[in-house]
Amino acid sequence: MKKTYLLTPGPTPIPERVAAILGQPVVHHRTPGFETLFQEVRENLKWVFQTKQEVLCLAASGTGAMEAAVSNLFSPGEKVITVNGGKFGERWTKIANAFGLTAIEIKLEPGAAVKPSELEKTIAAHSDAKAVLFQASETSTGSAQPVKAVADLCRKNGLLSVCDAITAAGVFDLPMDAWGIDVLMTGSQKAMMIPPGMAFIALSDRAWKKSESSTLPKFYLNLKKERDAHLKNQTAWTPATSLVMGLQESLRMMREEGLENIFKRHALLAASTRAAVEALGLEVLAKDSPSSAVTAVKVPSSIQEGKKIPKLMRDRYGVVITGGQDELAGKIFRLSHFGYCSIFDVTTAISCLELVLNELGHPVAYGTGVGAALKTYAAGGPG
Amino acid sequence: MKKTYLLTPGPTPIPERVAAILGQPVVHHRTPGFETLFQEVRENLKWVFQTKQEVLCLAASGTGAMEAAVSNLFSPGEKVITVNGGKFGERWTKIANAFGLTAIEIKLEPGAAVKPSELEKTIAAHSDAKAVLFQASETSTGSAQPVKAVADLCRKNGLLSVCDAITAAGVFDLPMDAWGIDVLMTGSQKAMMIPPGMAFIALSDRAWKKSESSTLPKFYLNLKKERDAHLKNQTAWTPATSLVMGLQESLRMMREEGLENIFKRHALLAASTRAAVEALGLEVLAKDSPSSAVTAVKVPSSIQEGKKIPKLMRDRYGVVITGGQDELAGKIFRLSHFGYCSIFDVTTAISCLELVLNELGHPVAYGTGVGAALKTYAAGGPG
Repeated sequence: MKKTYLLTPGPTPIPERVAAILGQPVVHHRTPGFETLFQEVRENLKWVFQTKQEVLCLAASGTGAMEAAVSNLFSPGEKVITVNGGKFGERWTKIANAFGLTAIEIKLEPGAAVKPSELEKTIAAHSDAKAVLFQASETSTGSAQPVKAVADLCRKNGLLSVCDAITAAGVFDLPMDAWGIDVLMTGSQKAMMIPPGMAFIALSDRAWKKSESSTLPKFYLNLKKERDAHLKNQTAWTPATSLVMGLQESLRMMREEGLENIFKRHALLAASTRAAVEALGLEVLAKDSPSSAVTAVKVPSSIQEGKKIPKLMRDRYGVVITGGQDELAGKIFRLSHFGYCSIFDVTTAISCLELVLNELGHPVAYGTGVGAALKTYAAGGPG
Repeated sequence: MKKTYLLTPGPTPIPERVAAILGQPVVHHRTPGFETLFQEVRENLKWVFQTKQEVLCLAASGTGAMEAAVSNLFSPGEKVITVNGGKFGERWTKIANAFGLTAIEIKLEPGAAVKPSELEKTIAAHSDAKAVLFQASETSTGSAQPVKAVADLCRKNGLLSVCDAITAAGVFDLPMDAWGIDVLMTGSQKAMMIPPGMAFIALSDRAWKKSESSTLPKFYLNLKKERDAHLKNQTAWTPATSLVMGLQESLRMMREEGLENIFKRHALLAASTRAAVEALGLEVLAKDSPSSAVTAVKVPSSIQEGKKIPKLMRDRYGVVITGGQDELAGKIFRLSHFGYCSIFDVTTAISCLELVLNELGHPVAYGTGVGAALKTYAAGGPG
C-alpha cells in the first residue's frame, strides 16, 4: 500500500465532492438540464475571472486556449511581443511563429520577472506591435509576472495584453476588468480543481474588436462562434460534459470559500513553503517575484543528480512533485501548493523532502523545514 | 424519482466499470504510471481501428479531429471533394472553406448514401482534387456511407480518403489498413463508451506523406508533434487524463467482447429497432443504407409537432433520444443503439415510443413495436 499525494502544478488534487460527480451518468448537452447547469457555470466563471465578459469553455488543454488567443486576434505578418520567462513563455513565441506572426521575444533569466521599464523600451522600439503575450505565473520557474503593470503599459500604448493565467487564475488576484487585461485564460486541472481536458478564455471589448479583423483560419477554436453558443447556455461543439458537471461543484466550493480567502490561503501556503525551503538551506529560484502557485527550488550543489529528488519522492514515498523542464532539468524541483491544498499538503511535501535530502547525502535535521512552514503558517493563518 | 436513459448518438451510456474509474485520483501524465497506462491504450486503439498506424489521442471533441485532418493534410487553395449527406457532411465543407480550400460538395438527399458512380464522375470532373472527405455514418440521418467503395475509388484515382467515423468506429467493420482508408477518426463519447472530451485520429502512410507539404498553420492540433509524443507513450499537451483512465477500462471491455461480436451486436440491435419502427407503421429515413449506430425515423403525418416526440419521451419518461437537426428538425427523431447498449435499451426506447405515439394521437397497439424488436433479436441473437 503506497498512498499517493499529487502535488504538481497541474493536475492538482480533485476534491472528494467533485470526484463523486465525475462518474455520474453524463447529461446530454443539448437538453434544458445541461443548459441550467451551464448557466450556473458561466456565471461562476465570470466571478472567478472578475469580468463581465463571457468566459468561454473549450474542450482542449490550456495550450488550445493559447492558440485560440493567437488565431482569433491576429493576422499573418502582424507583430507581437512575447515575454519568455521559461517553457510557457517560449510557447507563446512558438505559437506566434506557427501562425505566421512576427514575435519579438523578451528573454528573461530563469526565475526572473519582466521589468516594466524593459517592456516599455521594447514597446517603444516596436511601435507596430499589436500585443504583449505573457504569463501571470510562469509554471516552469515559479515566477509571478507583473500583470497589472503589463496591462497598464499595453493600454497606454494601444497594445493588447494577452495573459496566460493557466496557473494563476483562482490562485492570486487578477481582476480582469478592473486591471484592463484584454485576454485571460486558464485550464481545468489547475485552481479550478477538476481533471485536465477543459480550457477557459475571456476577451475584453478591445480584444473582441481586434478579432473582427483577424484573417487567420480557425474553426474548432473559433471564439466568436463559441460566444454565440454560450449566450444560449450551449457550446459550439460537444463539451467535455463530465468535466463541466465536476466544474459546477468545484465552482460552488470556490464561492463558498470566497475569492479573497482563496488568494490568502494560496499566499500563506506559498510563504510557508518558501520558509521551509530556506530553513533547509535551499534556495528559491524566483526569489524576487515568487508565484503563489508553485515554488521552484534550486537543487543544492551537494546533490549531483538533481532528477533524483522528485524521482525518489514519487517512487519511494508516493509524493508526486515535478522536476525542472528543458534546460532546468536536474537543476530545480517544483513544489506545488494551489487548488485543493491545505497546510498539510505543504507539510507532507516538506516532510518527504527532508527524508529524501538526507538519503541523497544532503543532511538536514528532521523537522527543520516542517517547523518553519508551520511557524509561518501559524503567524499568518486562520487560527 | 425519474430514472433516466441516455439513448442518443453521443454521449452514449457509460459502463459502470468505467464510471467507477472517472472519479479516481488523476494520474500525473508525465510519470511512468501514465506511460504504462497509455501504452496499453495505444495498443488497444490500434486494435479498434484495425491499423498498424498510431491512433492519436487529442483533448478535443470530434470536430477537433476533423479540423486536424484538414489543417495537417492540405494547403490553401487545394481542392477537396466533400460528401454532404447531412449536418456532419456539411461540416466538412465548412471546415474546408474556413481553411481556404476549395470544396466541391456532393449534396445528397437526407438519408441517402453516395453512389460510387456519382462520386467517380465528380472525381473525373475534378482531376486536381486531393481528397474525398466523408462520413462512415452520417449521424444526422442514420445513413451508412459506402466506405470501402469510396476508399477504393480514392486510391485508384490518387486521392486521399478522409473518413469521419465518429459514430462508426467500433460500431461496424471499418478495417482501416485492409480497406486503405487514409484518415480515420472518432470521438470518445461514441462507441468508445467514455464521456465527451477526447478525439482519436489515425493517418495512413500516404496521408502522412501528404501532410509533409501542408502549409496551413497548426499548433495545438499538430499531428506530427502528437505522433512523436505518442511514440514515447506521451501526448504533446496535457491529456484529458481522467478520460484516458476510463478509456483504458472501456477498451478492455471491448477486447473482452471482441470486434466481431461488437459489430454483430450493433447490427442486431439496429435491425431490431428497424423492425419495431416498421411494425409501428413508421418509416426509417435511411431505408436503403441504414447505419448500425442510429436509426432516424420519419415523424408520421398524423403528428403535427414532431419535436414533441423526443420532448415527451425525455420530459415525461426520462428517455433521452434526439430529434432532427437543422432542416430535419421536427421531421424525424433518432433512436440510438450503439456503445454500452443491449436489446433492453432498444425495448426501453420502443416501449417509451409506443406510450408517446398514443399520447400524441397516433394510436398503436401496445407491444407491437417491442414484439417485433424481440422477434428479430431472437432470430439473430445469441440465444
